[in-house]
Amino acid sequence: MALNVTEKLIKDHLVSGEMEPGAEIGLRIDQTLTQDATGTMVMLELEAMGLDYAKTEASAQYVDHNLIQEDSKNPDDHLFLESAAQRFGLYFSRPGHGVSHPVHMQRLAVPGKTLLGSDSHTCANGCMGMLAMGAGGIDVAMAIAGEPIYIKMPQVMGVKLTGKLPDWVSAKDVILEMLRRHDVKGGVGKIIEYYGPGLDNLSAMDRHVIANMGAELGATATVFPSDNEIKRFLAAQNRENDWVELTADDGATYDIHEAIHLSELEPLVAKPSSPGNVVPARELAGTPIYQSYIGSSANPGHRDFAIAAEIVNNRNIANGVSFDINPTSRQMLTNLVKEMHIASLLQSGARLHQAGCNGCIGMGQAPASGRNSLRTTPRNFPGRSGTKEDSVFLSSPETAAVSALTGEITDPRTVSFSYPEICDPSEPNVDDRLLEQPLPKDEAQKTKLVKGPNIASIPEMDSLPDILEVPVLLKVGDNISTDEILAGGARVLPYRSNLPEISKFTYEDVDPTYVDRAVDTKEKTGHTIVGGFNYGQGSSREHAALAPRYLGLRVVLVKDFARIHWQNLVNFGVLPLKFTNEEDYEKLEKGEVLQFRDLRNQVKNSDYIKLKLADQGDTITAEHHLSERQRDVILSGGLINWIKARQDGLN
Amino acid sequence: MALNVTEKLIKDHLVSGEMEPGAEIGLRIDQTLTQDATGTMVMLELEAMGLDYAKTEASAQYVDHNLIQEDSKNPDDHLFLESAAQRFGLYFSRPGHGVSHPVHMQRLAVPGKTLLGSDSHTCANGCMGMLAMGAGGIDVAMAIAGEPIYIKMPQVMGVKLTGKLPDWVSAKDVILEMLRRHDVKGGVGKIIEYYGPGLDNLSAMDRHVIANMGAELGATATVFPSDNEIKRFLAAQNRENDWVELTADDGATYDIHEAIHLSELEPLVAKPSSPGNVVPARELAGTPIYQSYIGSSANPGHRDFAIAAEIVNNRNIANGVSFDINPTSRQMLTNLVKEMHIASLLQSGARLHQAGCNGCIGMGQAPASGRNSLRTTPRNFPGRSGTKEDSVFLSSPETAAVSALTGEITDPRTVSFSYPEICDPSEPNVDDRLLEQPLPKDEAQKTKLVKGPNIASIPEMDSLPDILEVPVLLKVGDNISTDEILAGGARVLPYRSNLPEISKFTYEDVDPTYVDRAVDTKEKTGHTIVGGFNYGQGSSREHAALAPRYLGLRVVLVKDFARIHWQNLVNFGVLPLKFTNEEDYEKLEKGEVLQFRDLRNQVKNSDYIKLKLADQGDTITAEHHLSERQRDVILSGGLINWIKARQDGLN
Repeated sequence: MALNVTEKLIKDHLVSGEMEPGAEIGLRIDQTLTQDATGTMVMLELEAMGLDYAKTEASAQYVDHNLIQEDSKNPDDHLFLESAAQRFGLYFSRPGHGVSHPVHMQRLAVPGKTLLGSDSHTCANGCMGMLAMGAGGIDVAMAIAGEPIYIKMPQVMGVKLTGKLPDWVSAKDVILEMLRRHDVKGGVGKIIEYYGPGLDNLSAMDRHVIANMGAELGATATVFPSDNEIKRFLAAQNRENDWVELTADDGATYDIHEAIHLSELEPLVAKPSSPGNVVPARELAGTPIYQSYIGSSANPGHRDFAIAAEIVNNRNIANGVSFDINPTSRQMLTNLVKEMHIASLLQSGARLHQAGCNGCIGMGQAPASGRNSLRTTPRNFPGRSGTKEDSVFLSSPETAAVSALTGEITDPRTVSFSYPEICDPSEPNVDDRLLEQPLPKDEAQKTKLVKGPNIASIPEMDSLPDILEVPVLLKVGDNISTDEILAGGARVLPYRSNLPEISKFTYEDVDPTYVDRAVDTKEKTGHTIVGGFNYGQGSSREHAALAPRYLGLRVVLVKDFARIHWQNLVNFGVLPLKFTNEEDYEKLEKGEVLQFRDLRNQVKNSDYIKLKLADQGDTITAEHHLSERQRDVILSGGLINWIKARQDGLN
Repeated sequence: MALNVTEKLIKDHLVSGEMEPGAEIGLRIDQTLTQDATGTMVMLELEAMGLDYAKTEASAQYVDHNLIQEDSKNPDDHLFLESAAQRFGLYFSRPGHGVSHPVHMQRLAVPGKTLLGSDSHTCANGCMGMLAMGAGGIDVAMAIAGEPIYIKMPQVMGVKLTGKLPDWVSAKDVILEMLRRHDVKGGVGKIIEYYGPGLDNLSAMDRHVIANMGAELGATATVFPSDNEIKRFLAAQNRENDWVELTADDGATYDIHEAIHLSELEPLVAKPSSPGNVVPARELAGTPIYQSYIGSSANPGHRDFAIAAEIVNNRNIANGVSFDINPTSRQMLTNLVKEMHIASLLQSGARLHQAGCNGCIGMGQAPASGRNSLRTTPRNFPGRSGTKEDSVFLSSPETAAVSALTGEITDPRTVSFSYPEICDPSEPNVDDRLLEQPLPKDEAQKTKLVKGPNIASIPEMDSLPDILEVPVLLKVGDNISTDEILAGGARVLPYRSNLPEISKFTYEDVDPTYVDRAVDTKEKTGHTIVGGFNYGQGSSREHAALAPRYLGLRVVLVKDFARIHWQNLVNFGVLPLKFTNEEDYEKLEKGEVLQFRDLRNQVKNSDYIKLKLADQGDTITAEHHLSERQRDVILSGGLINWIKARQDGLN
């Protein structure tokens, strides 16, 4: 049978299940990545599991999120992560070395392999012919320990690319076009595979841009073939030996068909406050901006900065514009310095920030109140910039740089100068000076974990009770993001390894009374949250499941879930239910109490759960469609309990 | 009569008083600088005073402290400051343009002029043959409005420099030698004037390093002549026309004599946690470091970064060292980029941060708990780095860079390679792109202030009562810094224009119960604080007087005061008293109540104030030595009330 690239990757790594859309499959994981905001918890989980040494081919711990060291919490975490990487046999990318996704792509990605990462943009490395997926931290911990990842076999959407991008249009506009067509849940349950002759005109880094924001489509992964361009890219990294060819068989088919003619694309912009809110840049022409922001893993490449530099070279940014440059890796920054692009940017009036995630995750560069920010970052969820009621637009570096010159959103095709040509650096800097190699096993075993005062153990959680009477503490609408459940940003993230502290931020912008009301239920009945479609979209952070669980959340009842958050809820013992009849959503209001009887038996033996609305007396049906393994996990009260029981069983 | 440079500067600007050490003199102020952390309050004060247009020759508002934009507070303040600069006819240096002191030196400093700044390191511009002094924000507001500054006529300490610095020894070691000899109060009541043949071997930027840390000696100012080196410096800035010669007359004398033979100096390090705690670097050899930090206004020059870059060029920093590079101005950063010094630093493993004050004032780059940080910054007061119980050492860039390579404090003379030669850039970048010119008066008058939600008016304060019975809420020792009274850092500074919020941080590390206990006194009796020598050293931030005043502080009774804080207390209506008999300090304990009778009359007519200790029944004497003007200010309840009354009198 002719296979597409996705099918080949899955088939090569399948350890359980059938490759039929919707069925749970288990996949062997070759590589993992963790970043610092999620990684401290992963490392604590590895410690709790008693892991001796990573069982993956390559696992890397990056420090890229929490680079602002206002006190000892972040640097203490960096030292903890370094010691944990040494202890468990991981690569360690030190603070300042860069954003995980481009660094991993440059230094560790290998075509044909699987990569699981505790960051929702892990999918970016799908550009390398890998099956790269974001997951909750604990799933990654399991993968490091050699366990498979269990996902639902997705449908494969084949996107045929033809033609060539016009001047002033770049890879970012391709993924914005996909978001314009399919919105933020168009990729749910799907892997998106790009193919066709248009690929010849997209560099590996261009593909990174497209694969990265597959996360914004809600896709399980984005897959590109490993072709000669990937060979060229690896050769420039002195890693030609890591290249293998991986392309679709002749006659391979896809479950869903899509096509983009690159030549017909125009510059696009996602308006506030969803990456799916896409319109042509020309429709927004004249919208004043306060900030233009170049960088992040959604536009991480040399060319993304170089094109901006060429656009502003010997020109001045407009008065009143903050032109923020966020380099994505130290290696790339050095190249940009050597090629004089940084000098061009600075002379135009740019502010140069350290290499890292920075403002993309609310770590600095927040815009002023009531001002518009135009960014090349992947997301513009409300408040993600750090500013409440922010107004963030997403675009290509071309659109952002031209708009920095004019002071307003500008279709870059309207400028009077010609489109700059960008060359890759002739002698690119390849530099692993801040990427520490894994210690050999015997040295690793001698390493002690360095635990700062802000790192707390994960408390024990109880198993699923047989009888539950849980009040609805919160009723929310569609597309609730994990940023809304538990914000990122510099105020919150320093507590990511301190559950009692971080839980105080749960849902604070949606309903600031939630935490206090939840705490009241914690030692008693627990509680439930009711929601709409695409619940838990966005960042993969498992704290968005763990924190409300800590506060007493037992059941989430929604129209449907975003995949990673759904998984995270199961992992931490929160029962994720979908309405069987979506109209029942209307029946439920805050304060209603849901009564479950014989719950363990129901979960174990059926996809359908009956529950009674205490006030109204009605009984409604909800469904979970959990795999057998997941049912066990939920009944155990989460993955940690499940693993413990399993290990006990083995002893 | 033969005059030294200091005397010439004072004589040229004297508007009242006699030039006799200890007497209050009024000085005309030609230039001012404000930075963002103190400037929002200054701009609110200008607004409250109803200022139409700055009366100085040049006033500049810089944004260099609060560059971390985690939410809208800092960027909102930036916009407020920009609008205020436009409204009042000031220069505006936008975020990212650099640290006030080197930028001012490069672009606005003029020999022979006076400069008053709401930053304690304003003295740095004394390197330009200016009388440059730090002051409280309200003093600077008064200066912008055309009022003189009133200070006590200082003694002039003449420091004769001879010889030439050896290899591996630089300007920082000169000022560390002064601190080794005179400690942090050795300059109190003095202006330090450098002269002699050794000056020929110190560049303008070297002199900046020395003048900058005059603040750490407690000196009123540091003065250098304006000689051919200053002419050369200004010429490189395309400002040769601003040069005037200003040197001491033949036969000029000094009140106090000091001499340094540059050739005999060796690399020095200030140990935690005082800049006066200086020892030779060789004595600390082998002390492990977690961080090496290059930058800040204490080592802001091209050569300071270039020498570090040459030292680490084609070498690797040691494992485990965070090598943090904080460029001090955008103009200099561009030069360092063009000269490939930034590339050298990055390739050695450095982290490059944005241009600004950053970690020097606790805005990022805090060290991990229990680890040593070696910095070229001017101060290592406890906790100033952002990390509680930090361990910060101060040194030259040479010592910091060599130690980054070895991972431990290292006398740089012990390395196996020769001392790099540093040249100034052949074609230096001169770039005012982010330095906005003042608006002409008619345009300024049309400008509206842009006030963010975090900017609150200064509440009204009452005048000095005739009867006071104030409990001692706090008894502290010697050398209490304004950092200890009210910390800087990213947690606190965003509230600098929100008095109710910022006051909650007062004395939090010294006594976390102080704020609650003070609030209890606020609407009742008020309270007092008792202290030792050099009370209020360090940063000039007026919030360190304003916040406790807001909490009910009426009297501070200490052995002696640091000059700027003393002035700030007067400005906000807190009576600053010194023990007439220092032994009385021992009599006073927390909880004792001080009883003042006929206080207004006492303050008005005598330097000596009688007060009764309620518990012990003793009466002791304290003294204030306030000028007549200051007495009026204290009686009025502070400068704002005083100005209001004065303006009312004029109407």
